[in-house]
Amino acid sequence: MTTLSPSTSAFPVASQVVHAIQGATRVLCVSHVAPDGDAVGSLLGMGWMLHRLGKETTLALPDSPPQEFAYVPGVENIVSPEAVGADFDLIICLDASSPDRMGAVYRPADHDAIPLLVIDHHVTNTYFGDLNWVEPGCAATCQMLVYLADALHLELTGELAVSLLTGLVTDTLGFRTSNTDARVLAAATRLVEGGAPLSQIVADTLSTRTFASVRLWGAALADVQLEDGIIWAVLRRADRERIQARDEDGDGLASFLVTVKEADISATFTERLDEQGAPYVACSFRAKPGFDVSSVAVALGGGGHPPAAGCTLPGVAEDVVDRVITALRTARRRSLDGRTPASTTTLGVTSHGSR
Amino acid sequence: MTTLSPSTSAFPVASQVVHAIQGATRVLCVSHVAPDGDAVGSLLGMGWMLHRLGKETTLALPDSPPQEFAYVPGVENIVSPEAVGADFDLIICLDASSPDRMGAVYRPADHDAIPLLVIDHHVTNTYFGDLNWVEPGCAATCQMLVYLADALHLELTGELAVSLLTGLVTDTLGFRTSNTDARVLAAATRLVEGGAPLSQIVADTLSTRTFASVRLWGAALADVQLEDGIIWAVLRRADRERIQARDEDGDGLASFLVTVKEADISATFTERLDEQGAPYVACSFRAKPGFDVSSVAVALGGGGHPPAAGCTLPGVAEDVVDRVITALRTARRRSLDGRTPASTTTLGVTSHGSR
Repeated sequence: MTTLSPSTSAFPVASQVVHAIQGATRVLCVSHVAPDGDAVGSLLGMGWMLHRLGKETTLALPDSPPQEFAYVPGVENIVSPEAVGADFDLIICLDASSPDRMGAVYRPADHDAIPLLVIDHHVTNTYFGDLNWVEPGCAATCQMLVYLADALHLELTGELAVSLLTGLVTDTLGFRTSNTDARVLAAATRLVEGGAPLSQIVADTLSTRTFASVRLWGAALADVQLEDGIIWAVLRRADRERIQARDEDGDGLASFLVTVKEADISATFTERLDEQGAPYVACSFRAKPGFDVSSVAVALGGGGHPPAAGCTLPGVAEDVVDRVITALRTARRRSLDGRTPASTTTLGVTSHGSR
Repeated sequence: MTTLSPSTSAFPVASQVVHAIQGATRVLCVSHVAPDGDAVGSLLGMGWMLHRLGKETTLALPDSPPQEFAYVPGVENIVSPEAVGADFDLIICLDASSPDRMGAVYRPADHDAIPLLVIDHHVTNTYFGDLNWVEPGCAATCQMLVYLADALHLELTGELAVSLLTGLVTDTLGFRTSNTDARVLAAATRLVEGGAPLSQIVADTLSTRTFASVRLWGAALADVQLEDGIIWAVLRRADRERIQARDEDGDGLASFLVTVKEADISATFTERLDEQGAPYVACSFRAKPGFDVSSVAVALGGGGHPPAAGCTLPGVAEDVVDRVITALRTARRRSLDGRTPASTTTLGVTSHGSR
C-alpha cells in the first residue's frame, strides 16, 4: 500500500503514478460494467497515451461499448473478458469506484499478483488498488487524464483529444453539472484546440434520441403529474410494446422532468418483465440541488446519490406509484425543513492506497 | 463611414472602437426587440464596463427582458423606449443586425446626429453604424465584449462576468452549437474564473421549463410523425387552452425533434389566433448540418437561416401541414442530391462601415 500526501495545488499527478506507467511494458487497461462515455473515453485515452509511450497494451471492458461511442478512435480494439490474458506487468483500472465494477475482465486468480493502479474521480472510490489516484474534485476521469498527459509530456491532440473530450462532455452532460468549474472548461478548451470536434461529440452522445424514444416520452408525458413539487410519469409496458421500443429507449426522462420550474424532485416508473416473466417497475429519481432522493431509493432497496438515485420494485405501476410518491413527498419535506442538509462536494486531492 | 482593415489574428478590437468608447461621456446602449440572452447579457455587460470607466450610461430595450434573465445583475435598470432621452454623445447598438431590430428605443429624429457604434456577431449585419465592429466568427456578441474588456483593461469579474457568460451560454445553447470553438471555451473559462456561476446560469436559462410546457409537449408528442427523414408535431390550440398554457410554453420542440437520429429536418405547427380572432399556424423548422430549411420558410413568406427558419400561414393545422411537409420533403431531397450545398461559416474579422 502506498500513501500519497494530499496537495493543495490543482490536481497534480503524483510521481508514483507517472513512474508506474513509465516503468511498465505490458499493460492491461480496464473500466467498468455498463460503460458510459467517461469509461470508454478514459480507457481509450489511456490506450492512446500508452501507445505513444510504446507500451504493449490490452484494452478490455466487461460489457460492449454502446453504439453512440462508435466514433471514438480505437473503440473497435476493446476486447471482451474472454480475450483477456494474464501476462501483464501493470493493470490500470479507470473510472471504477470498486473492484466489482470491473466485472469479468479482472480475474483475481490471474491478476491479483500484478500491480493495480486505480485512476478514478468518484468520491465513493474504495481505494482497492496498489496505487490509487482518486480526485473527487475532477468532473470526469478523462479530466484527470488531461493532467496525466501533461505529466507524461504527451500532446493533447488527435485520437487522445477526441477520447478525453468524450468523457468530459458526457460526465458533465455538456458542461451542465454543478461540478463544471473553470478547470473543466480549461481542460476542454485544450482538447478542442488539439482538434477534438466538440459539437460532433455533443451531437453523437448527448443530442441523439431514437424516434421510438420520443414516442415513448410522448406516451408518458400525456399523463405527466405534478403535486407538491414532485413531478412524475409512467413508461408503460403496453406503450413500449406498441412502439417496439428497445430497453434503453425512454431513458433520460427523469432528468428532463426535474428541469421543470415547479418541481424539486422527479420520478419515472418504467414497467418491465424480469427473466421469469414477472412484472417489476424500474424507478428513477432526480432532485434539484438542496434535495435528496438517495434516502428514498436506499429505503426501497436501491441506491444512488442525493441528486440521482433509483430502485426496482415488484409489480406494475399501479402497485408502486402511490407508495413511492408518498416517500418522495416526505423526503422533500424533510429537505425543506432543513433536517437533511444539502450534499457537499469534497474538493482537493485525496490520493492514498488501502488495498 | 470608417473602414477597418480585416486582420487574421483572433478577433482584435480596432483602436477606433476603443477610442470611441473612451472618448464618450454620456452613452446610450441599446439592443434588439424580443431580447434573448445575448441581447440582455451584452447590454448589461457593456453597461458594467461603461460604469467602471465612469461614464454616464442609459441602457434601453424595446421590449422587456424575459423573466428567466431576472438574475442578471442590473437588469432592473434597463429602461423602456419612452424613458430614452436624446442627450448622448455616443450610442452603442449591441447584437442587432439591422436598424429596425432596435425598435422604438432608437428615434432617428433625436438620435441620427449622435455617433452610432454597432457591435454584433451576426453574419447578416447590414453595417448601419458610423463605426461597425462585426465578428461573424464569434458565437455571441458577449464573446466580443470579452475581447473588448481586455482592450479596455477591465477585469472579467463580478457583474461583468455574469452578464457576459449569460450571452455566451444562451447563444451557444450551452456550448452545443457548431460554432462553439476553443476560443468560445477559453472565453467561458475566464468568465467562470472571474466568478460567473456557470451551472446556475445554465439552470436558469437553458434547463428551465414550465409544467404547462411539458404537458403541451406531451400532447404534441403523443401524435408525433416521422416520414422520409422529416419529423413533425402539432401544438393544438385546444390543448393550449385546456392546459392554460402561455404563448411561450411549448417553445423549443422543433429543436428537440431535430435531435432524433432518424430525422434530418423537424417541423412544429403551433395553432394560434390573430388579433381579429382568425386562426393561423406558426411553423418552426430545424435542420441537421447539410440540410437547409430557410428556402422553404422564405418561399412561404417567412425567413431564417439554413439550420433554423420559420413562417406563419393562415388556417388551422389541417390546412397547412401537408403542404409544408411536401415542401420540406422536396428541400430535403434537394440537399441530399447536393444541389444545395451545406451552409458555410464565414470566419475572421470583417469590420467596416457603410451607413
